Amino acid sequence: MEVTRILARYLVNSRHEDLPPPVIHEASRAILNWLGCAIGSSRHETVERALAALREFSGPPQAAVLGRTERLDILHAALVNGISSHVLDFDDTHARAVHPSAPVLPALLAYAEWRKVSGAELAHAFVLGVEAEIRIGLSVFPEHYDVGWHITGTAGVFGAAAAAGKLLRLDERQMAWALGIAATQSAGLREMFGSMCKSFHPGRAAHNGLTAALLAARNFTSSERAIEAPRGFAHVLSTRFDPAVITQGLGERFEILSNMYKPYACGLVVHAAIDGCIELKREHHLAPHEIERIELGVNPLVLELTGKQSPQTGLEGKFSVYHAAAVAVVHEAAGEAQFSDECVRHPEVVALRGKVTARADGALRKTEAYATIRLKDGRTFTRHVEHALGTLARPMSDADLEAKFRGLVSGILPESRREALIRMCWAITTLDDAGVVARAAAGVGTPARD
Amino acid sequence: MEVTRILARYLVNSRHEDLPPPVIHEASRAILNWLGCAIGSSRHETVERALAALREFSGPPQAAVLGRTERLDILHAALVNGISSHVLDFDDTHARAVHPSAPVLPALLAYAEWRKVSGAELAHAFVLGVEAEIRIGLSVFPEHYDVGWHITGTAGVFGAAAAAGKLLRLDERQMAWALGIAATQSAGLREMFGSMCKSFHPGRAAHNGLTAALLAARNFTSSERAIEAPRGFAHVLSTRFDPAVITQGLGERFEILSNMYKPYACGLVVHAAIDGCIELKREHHLAPHEIERIELGVNPLVLELTGKQSPQTGLEGKFSVYHAAAVAVVHEAAGEAQFSDECVRHPEVVALRGKVTARADGALRKTEAYATIRLKDGRTFTRHVEHALGTLARPMSDADLEAKFRGLVSGILPESRREALIRMCWAITTLDDAGVVARAAAGVGTPARD
Repeated sequence: MEVTRILARYLVNSRHEDLPPPVIHEASRAILNWLGCAIGSSRHETVERALAALREFSGPPQAAVLGRTERLDILHAALVNGISSHVLDFDDTHARAVHPSAPVLPALLAYAEWRKVSGAELAHAFVLGVEAEIRIGLSVFPEHYDVGWHITGTAGVFGAAAAAGKLLRLDERQMAWALGIAATQSAGLREMFGSMCKSFHPGRAAHNGLTAALLAARNFTSSERAIEAPRGFAHVLSTRFDPAVITQGLGERFEILSNMYKPYACGLVVHAAIDGCIELKREHHLAPHEIERIELGVNPLVLELTGKQSPQTGLEGKFSVYHAAAVAVVHEAAGEAQFSDECVRHPEVVALRGKVTARADGALRKTEAYATIRLKDGRTFTRHVEHALGTLARPMSDADLEAKFRGLVSGILPESRREALIRMCWAITTLDDAGVVARAAAGVGTPARD
Repeated sequence: MEVTRILARYLVNSRHEDLPPPVIHEASRAILNWLGCAIGSSRHETVERALAALREFSGPPQAAVLGRTERLDILHAALVNGISSHVLDFDDTHARAVHPSAPVLPALLAYAEWRKVSGAELAHAFVLGVEAEIRIGLSVFPEHYDVGWHITGTAGVFGAAAAAGKLLRLDERQMAWALGIAATQSAGLREMFGSMCKSFHPGRAAHNGLTAALLAARNFTSSERAIEAPRGFAHVLSTRFDPAVITQGLGERFEILSNMYKPYACGLVVHAAIDGCIELKREHHLAPHEIERIELGVNPLVLELTGKQSPQTGLEGKFSVYHAAAVAVVHEAAGEAQFSDECVRHPEVVALRGKVTARADGALRKTEAYATIRLKDGRTFTRHVEHALGTLARPMSDADLEAKFRGLVSGILPESRREALIRMCWAITTLDDAGVVARAAAGVGTPARD
């Protein structure tokens, strides 16, 4: 069973012309969404601390830190842009597992500033990187995730290696080595959720995957059976492995078509509850002080992942479905502002949060929820959200994604740059030099205000 | 059970004065041995390819690549020196598991060129790094290793983080973060054995552990329970975890005292047979053409791991107990020269190799062997090696280590530098600036010949 080799062969032989137009369009959507997340979080404390720690070890100024004026070597740029694009947990999510863009695009965009790459090449490599990481991730899912691996890190490193390897035009054997060097760096623990290390995972995956491809291009060898061997990735990091998930239908179905984008700045599992609360608030013009109780019905995983009853920081707020429901009612929103330290500690939010209860219901999907609001005057309103906004069944539109991008980027890039980036993303395959995207996404001398 | 916190507290509070003199002396021995391995392998193809791939992304020339003239940023220097020191598998081995020095010393020595550190501080940090990595490794051993993790990589990253964190004078919480950032980068698969990735593991561990400490110093946060939490290192990467192995007797017993050094450039299991052959040759002044047969009695694992009867390359020679016995008699040595392609194909060696037989004997320990040499004139000599040279029961002497160092370094560094390095290692705690060691171990403009 030559799983690694079959995948490597596909990656090497795939041509841009083989990609159906909807696949390319989804790549554009993902790139736009990812750029907004990275630029929007470019001054996040996590990014600041990573830069403070590592800047003085960076090589030549080869690639931009998005939204900032620093330029780093491509490996460090990949690391930092990987952190910034995931730090708000506002980046894309595959329908079944993995945040696809955060480990892959930082490596590709940095590469495109170092060696000339067309927009079509970059989009193609991105699609392949996503294909590799999702298939490898799903081949060991959910056991691999359940035991405690952060699959965005552990699978993401393969995506970065595959994508960068495509740009480096590795041959089949070198591509197998790149996947092997990625496998032997595969890491990231779910124990880190709630700390700065969570966003470090896709950053390090981008960094390590790019390193793997660069090493393989110089014939640095690894096992050529790194995924499937008895002491390889799948058997060491999971109790289950389905190799067919990796090898079947390559070039026929594309995992990027199952990509989803978040309207709210927290984990997807909370979104349906937020939708329900926002919709009830809007429809019935509810004031927080009128509310006696908010009762949520959610999938059991929601409580497992976001069960913090009394978050103390903005970051902890993202892991509290109670906080999410409270801000949805108070602010009719769940953007980054609603997950700030200030908002988490605001008396009105704290008071309402204390009135939220959540009941696990195994019959509900993760993106489905019931929200019931009971008022002090006895009235009760209930909303059943079948599909959260941003899911495959109810995707964000291109216009929704543009609006999200504008919201994230405003105040960091001038309007002209912002609109130029939107145009570049939709026309990515027409770009002669994809490096223009990175240069447009770099910060300007002083923060611009629109 | 606050395992991570207890370990962090010990690491932060330990003082150099608390270390018994034999511990410091063992640190000197390990540093000397490690330097020889790194310098001696500095032109290995694995090192050349890693440098070719990554050199152009290196930051300022902060630290030496040992045995070479390149200077890299401290992170890349740690990576490359970690690779070179392990690539020949000639570095030290803890009595139960882990190659202790290769993941730790590269980080420390690079650091010592960047920020001034005394020799006493460096030796102290090294002892603590070894303590952390061995205890963490043994707390999940052997299940963790048996499933397929290369424990030198997975535990080594903790050693590098702990040691670098000590030099950075992290406080207790920061040290817990450093261990956490290390935990979430812990990686390395045994599937890579036999490829260039095997030595990449301690290199990456040095690089990643140093990164972890630098990030923690800037308050980049991680879980503070990274080792023991349900989704932390021990439970995710092993089916067994004994926390007492980490926390008991800290500061009372020192794992570095169980460190072992290899006299021969091949796997430890072959060493007792080599000892027997060398001793018989020396004692009886045997010439290869007089020999009718060489009969070995060895532990069954020896044939399992090193049963190649007709090796064709130097690397294959390391997996042939037949070749090892033949060169021991022909050359009275089993250094890197005896495992070259040339030596493996030399007619005299090939001829004698064909006269070697080996019998598995389950009553023999892995480091025990019988060697019998039968001469054509009818005489027969037998030697029982109870403990191979280099084991804890029969350690290499300081003079043995010096001789090994001289052999590895000759032809790369001039004699004056070589002897100066030996003196520095024995007097490590008297050095005001440990950076002098790295500068003395750096390559000179053109290869020197003694």
